[in-house]
Parts: sequence; structure tokens; C-alpha cells
Amino acid sequence: MSQKPTLPKGTRDFGPQQMAKRNFVFSAIKEVFEKYGFMPLETPAMENLSVLTGKYGDEGDQLLFKILNSGDFLSNADVNDFNEGSRALLPKIAEKGLKYDLTVPFARYVVMNRHELTLPFKRYQIQPVWRADRPQKGRYREFFQCDADVVGTDSLICEAEIVLMINEVFSKLGIDDFNIKINHRQILTGITEAIGAGGKESDFCVSIDKLDKIGLEKVLEEMKERGISPEATEKAVPILQLQGSIEEKIAALKDILKNSDAGQKGISDIEEALTTLKSFDLSNHRIDFDVTLARGLSYYTGAIFEVKVKNVSIGSVSGGGRYDDLTGVFGMSGLSGVGFSFGVDRIYDVMEELNLFPKEALTSTEVLIIHFDEASMKYGLSVLGKLRRAGIKSEIYPDQAKIKKQFNYADKKNIQHTIVIGSEEVSSGKLTLRNMVSGQEEKLTIEEIIHKLQSTK
Amino acid sequence: MSQKPTLPKGTRDFGPQQMAKRNFVFSAIKEVFEKYGFMPLETPAMENLSVLTGKYGDEGDQLLFKILNSGDFLSNADVNDFNEGSRALLPKIAEKGLKYDLTVPFARYVVMNRHELTLPFKRYQIQPVWRADRPQKGRYREFFQCDADVVGTDSLICEAEIVLMINEVFSKLGIDDFNIKINHRQILTGITEAIGAGGKESDFCVSIDKLDKIGLEKVLEEMKERGISPEATEKAVPILQLQGSIEEKIAALKDILKNSDAGQKGISDIEEALTTLKSFDLSNHRIDFDVTLARGLSYYTGAIFEVKVKNVSIGSVSGGGRYDDLTGVFGMSGLSGVGFSFGVDRIYDVMEELNLFPKEALTSTEVLIIHFDEASMKYGLSVLGKLRRAGIKSEIYPDQAKIKKQFNYADKKNIQHTIVIGSEEVSSGKLTLRNMVSGQEEKLTIEEIIHKLQSTK
Repeated sequence: MSQKPTLPKGTRDFGPQQMAKRNFVFSAIKEVFEKYGFMPLETPAMENLSVLTGKYGDEGDQLLFKILNSGDFLSNADVNDFNEGSRALLPKIAEKGLKYDLTVPFARYVVMNRHELTLPFKRYQIQPVWRADRPQKGRYREFFQCDADVVGTDSLICEAEIVLMINEVFSKLGIDDFNIKINHRQILTGITEAIGAGGKESDFCVSIDKLDKIGLEKVLEEMKERGISPEATEKAVPILQLQGSIEEKIAALKDILKNSDAGQKGISDIEEALTTLKSFDLSNHRIDFDVTLARGLSYYTGAIFEVKVKNVSIGSVSGGGRYDDLTGVFGMSGLSGVGFSFGVDRIYDVMEELNLFPKEALTSTEVLIIHFDEASMKYGLSVLGKLRRAGIKSEIYPDQAKIKKQFNYADKKNIQHTIVIGSEEVSSGKLTLRNMVSGQEEKLTIEEIIHKLQSTK
Repeated sequence: MSQKPTLPKGTRDFGPQQMAKRNFVFSAIKEVFEKYGFMPLETPAMENLSVLTGKYGDEGDQLLFKILNSGDFLSNADVNDFNEGSRALLPKIAEKGLKYDLTVPFARYVVMNRHELTLPFKRYQIQPVWRADRPQKGRYREFFQCDADVVGTDSLICEAEIVLMINEVFSKLGIDDFNIKINHRQILTGITEAIGAGGKESDFCVSIDKLDKIGLEKVLEEMKERGISPEATEKAVPILQLQGSIEEKIAALKDILKNSDAGQKGISDIEEALTTLKSFDLSNHRIDFDVTLARGLSYYTGAIFEVKVKNVSIGSVSGGGRYDDLTGVFGMSGLSGVGFSFGVDRIYDVMEELNLFPKEALTSTEVLIIHFDEASMKYGLSVLGKLRRAGIKSEIYPDQAKIKKQFNYADKKNIQHTIVIGSEEVSSGKLTLRNMVSGQEEKLTIEEIIHKLQSTK
């Protein structure tokens, strides 16, 4: 019996047109990563659950896709495990899961290869990850992450290079109107100390992380609910509303955080990264030093980044930050680094919304050979051979079919040129090259056609 | 507590050096696929088990990796299911699995998108697949497949183009000494008819598929065990030992198969594909028409292909063939096509064995900037900015460290050039460019360095 096939919820196929667009984004990012000395790494889709579990909090553990042991998966389970429910049975029947992000597998890789790796180690990784989240618009169960990390150095050159890479990637993609928000976890620590809420950094961060979504009033309410005193909450207001140029904000914070070592360290890091950027001759006009930027992940300990594209419905499209302990959880402590992740699905959506994909990126085959009969099809094969030997992406319509059908194939496949061959063309050697966009036609020899197509590339 | 992290059995990490080599192989294949008008498709790792199950035989179903339903996966199961064992419990707790090959997901994609697709549809797909096989040397549980298929045409031009693509890919990779074995399923059908074993085609194929591994004697034994009569087995011997040029073999078969319609059709297909190849001006010297080629997969119905590299321990590295019903199992019948799959893991191993990876493919960063002190590091940043603006992959050692350590980093990362900057270089603007391979050093301005590096590309 045949059934109508379906896709699992929250997953997608990427057909040729979407692949062309996605590859345009991936290529831009890869090219920049490699220009900055990052090298590719790929890890398996499957990881042992012992590697994944406990790294993403309780909620994260729930969202891991678990893989049933192969063979008789019940061989280690007894009926008591079953009666105790899913949680008790799980470890008896599944020891592997699909990776949830690229950071934990990267940490595992670093630990397993620590004797061979030369530090600092700069890697990038572009691979799918899986989360059993409730699917919704823009949120998928299988999606790509696109990460670059440097580990094994505290140098603030790395932070500056992240800003440079962001600028280069977005400019390659044609996205002009964006901001790079930066902040520093120790500035946030300093602020909690300065307002008299020392030790409450995590509650403070979780609250202000929602500023864009719920507004200042509700953020202040949440702070109080999370045990930050009304006085401290009151004191936070002017800091969260800090305005002015980067220099003005830094000057103000230097005063506000004058009694906090953490705060001073945070400010000096930001200043050094900005100075380094100037050494690269990059102006700071896209940088928005924003003390309300908190970033969700708890493992950040230094500078944090977020990119927002303006005038689109989608907010943050990329983010990252510095951490001081990537691999401690696997028994190798003190390895610090800084990483950044491009949100490719969101960048794709932004580019669709702003209509930024260049037409050239979407053309596939350059030439389709169209033929009137068997003899011209045969002649077309030798023409095709010449085009391909010249490196021109080309194909012949493989069946004898109505001319209209063959043209339609070229249209649907977004092929830019056709060469139409009939008995006249076979005897004269002069072929009709048609530009499918302009409709213009020319009679040329195959050598002239090759020359023309190569010179317009 | 921290634990030593491990990789699941049969899976691999691909570090920077391996990635560079793999990407060299993938790029060559992609480039050829696209030159021939194939367009990329990607499908999810996860498929519904309703799509996967029953497509690969009983053994295949056993080798599928199944994914536990998320949340309380036992909510649809009762203790009777548990007591009945894994098979009974499975459908209650898992509805998704990891894809086992690229063909079934491709068929699903075609069926789900049949109203939008323009036929013939030429797609390529390079993605990992998963099989719960017992891992052993050269056999992994997660590995890449690299497929190209044309569906919606019976044209034998497609068969010819497969031969052309194989030639181009292997020549790009530098693999010279290989054979493209071809045969035709209907020739095999014809042979079974001719020897008096009509209807036993599948047993015949399974047996002769092992000719390379177990030799003729054992193949004949197996035929008999599978119910092919001793007389038929006897008659098969001279056919399986057929020698001579392609033309001689075809002539002999025309006689042997003169009473078999299937056999005649098979021979005429092979002849037409070979004639088409000549129209492309390709000589046939790599083609080995081999009547003992059977290919395991039962869904092939026309021409079949296999590539063998000579003088290496690995046998077949790629294969494919024509089928007449890709999508019938999903309720869309009559869609024929032809496909080919490059075995990238084996090609990789062959290239390692023959030492064929070009050095250029393995270089990463082109230039590392090495510095003596803080001032020269700062100066190095502006040099780095200039190199990158010129499109040169480059990096600076991000920490102040001993010169030896910085050189060591360049060595380990296979970086071809270093620029060493000290106080003298900062004041004169003349920088020392060192070729890390030859050891040669030159004093040049940054503009001269850029010019030199760009002109040697």
C-alpha cells in the first residue's frame, strides 16, 4: 500500500532555488571566516547522551532528540523501569542523541584532541542542530548553526576581529542597515554591585534581556519579583537609560562603576577592543555600546555581541561573546575563548524581506541546447561537449519534445541562454543564441558563443 | 563530575586537515554536477518512519536509527507492548528515524513537490546518512553520500552523461587509473532466459555480484544452492567468462541473447549510450562492458555502472544505474530515471593511498604576522587590515609570545608565509616576508608583499 509521504514537524526540504540562496549566505560567511584564519570542523550528528545531558539545563535535556539503541533496545530494561515511566526507562534504551548546538561538540572535540591541537585554535563549524522545541514561524526542529570560535587566548584582538567579520559578512550580503550591539558581562556585574544588588547578576540579566520585548516598566517589575530590592531597581533606571556616544557612555560608566573591580575590567576591555579596531582602520559607526544587552547564555564571562538589522520585522540575527571555561565540564579547565554565531535562517529571512539576493546567485545552468529533431539533437551533443570543455555550465534537453516545452524548461530552471538548433543551423554551423531575459537573439558560431559567454562572466 | 568524553561508535570528527581534503573532493564533484545542469537539494536528517520503513528490506529496517518521540514517550504505550518486546513497543514510542540513504528522501521530495517540479528534474545531493551497521574499517554509522539523479526521462543521453561526469570527476581528482564497468539489467535477464533459468534473475544477480570476492567456483555453487539447475549453471560459465573488446562482446551477446526481447533491449541501450558518448567526442577507453556486473540494489531496471580504481586495495568506489519506478511506493508511478553515487569515503581513502591530495588544497591561512613586542603587534594590525582588504587570508598571532612559539603556530597550521615585524620594521616600513616552505626571506613593503602574493596565486 502506498501512503502520502510527509515531513516530520519542524523540518524542511531545501529545493534548488532555496539551496542557491542558502549557499550564497553560507559562502559569504565561509569566505570571511577563512580570510580571518578560521578553519573548518565537522562533528557527527549523533553524540553520546553522556556528552550532551546536563549541558543545557533541565529544559535543554527535555529538548534533546534521543536515539533508540539499535537491535533489541529493551535488552537492558525490565518492567520496573517501564512502570517508573519515561525518565527511568530512557537511560536503559537510549545512549545517543542528536546534537543540540555546536559548542558542546566543539568542547568535546577540543578535549579529545588536546594533545594534537595548537593553541590558539580558530575553528568554524556550519552544521545542522536539532531541538525538540514546539515548531512555530521561524523556529525549526532541525536548523543550521554557523559558529566561529577562537580558544586558548585572552587577547582582545579576537573581540575586534569578530566586529570586523560581522561587518564584512553583512556587507558581502548587501545588508547595510545594521547595528552591532556590544556590552560586557563584568559591566553588568559592576552595575548590580553599584545599585546594591551584588550577587543578583543572573536575575538582573534575565530581566533586562527582555527589555525589547516587554519594555522598561515590566522589566523593573520582574527585577523586584526576582528579589532585587525596590531601591536597587530604582537606581538601575538611569543606567539602563544611558544615552550618548560610546565615549560619553564609557565616561559615565567609569564614574558609576568606580568602586567595582569587575566593572572597571569590563570597561577597560571594551576600550581596548575599540582601540584595536581603530588600528585596523575601521570606523566605529555601526557599533552600539548598549549596557542593556545581556545575552541569555550563562557561560559568557566577558564581552558580548549581538547584531540587529534595522527596519525589518526580525530582531537579533547573530550573537556571541567571550567565555572563560569552555571545557571544564569535560575535565579540562581554564580554556578561555570567544565565539560568534551567525543566525543563517534569520539572515535568510531578512534578505528575502529586503529582496537582497542577487539574480546572478540564483542562475543555475548557463545554457540550454534546444533541438528540432533527432539530427539536430545529435549535433547538439557535440556543441554541448564544446561548451562544457570551455567550463560553461550547460545541458541539452534530453528528449525530443516540442520547442515550447524545451523553452519552458529553460524558463522554469532560470537558465539565462538557449541555443536553438535545427537543420539550417546544422548545415551552416551558425547557431541561434537567445538571451532568455532580454529576448535578444544572435546567429553565431559555437566558438563565438563560447567567447561571448566567457567574456560576460 | 566531569567525565572523559567519547564519540559514538562508528562516527567521526573531521578536523581542519581532513575537512580540507574532504572539501577538495566535494568541490570537484559539485563543480562537475553543476556543469552538467544538476541542481542541489537537501532533505532533513530526520524522516518519518512511515517514509523509511519497508524500503530497504527487513535487514534495512533493522539498521535504521530510530528517534524517541519527544516529551513523555511512553504516553501511548502500555505494559503489554513492553512485555511483547522491542518490535511491539517501537511504533508506540518512535515515529521518526535518521535517513538511511538519499534515494528514498529524494523520492519523497519529488512526490511532495510534483506539482511544482519541471521534468526532467536533475538534482544532486551531498549529505550524511546513518546506518546501525556493525562498524569496521571503512564502514561507518554516519557517512556521506553524494548522489546525482535525473528523473522524468528515458533518454540514454543521461547514461552517456553519467560516464562523462565520472571521467571528469576522477580526472579533476587526479585519479587516472580507473575503469567504468557498465552492464544492463535486461542483459542479465536475457542471460537467465538464455541459460534456461528464466525468472531466477534475482538469484543469478546476487550470486554473480560476489564474483570478485569469492571466485567463479563458489559463485556457481551458490547459483545451484539458490535453485538454478546444474545445466543452466554450466551454460552460464562461457558467458561469465566472455572476453574481448566491447564490440566483440556485444556481437557475441547478440547471438547468445537472440531469442530474448529483454536481452536485445539491453544490448541496444548499451549501443546507443556508447554512440552518444562518441557524439560528445569521448573515447571509450575507460569503459569496461562487463556482463558479470550485477549491482546489489533490486530497483535497477536498465543500465548499471560501477567504478573501480586499479592498483589500490579498495574495490568499487562509485556506482549507479537506471530505474523505472522511483516513486511508486509513494503512490506516484511510472517515474523513471537514472542515478549515480560517488563513494566519497572510499575516494578519500584511495587518494590518501595514492598520495593524490595536492598541497595547495591543504593550505589554510596564507600569511601569519609575527611580532616582537606590543608596538610591533599594533603596527601588525594595520598590516593585517591591508592584507585582508586585498583578499589575502591572513592572521596575526593574537598574544605576545616568544618568536619560536609564533613560528611553531605557522608550521602546525600549514601557513605558507610569515611576516616578521620588530622595531626596525616598524620604523623602516620594510617587512620581512618569509616563505615557510623554502625558508627564503625578503625585505619588502606591504604593497610589494601584497603584489607578490597576489601574482603567485
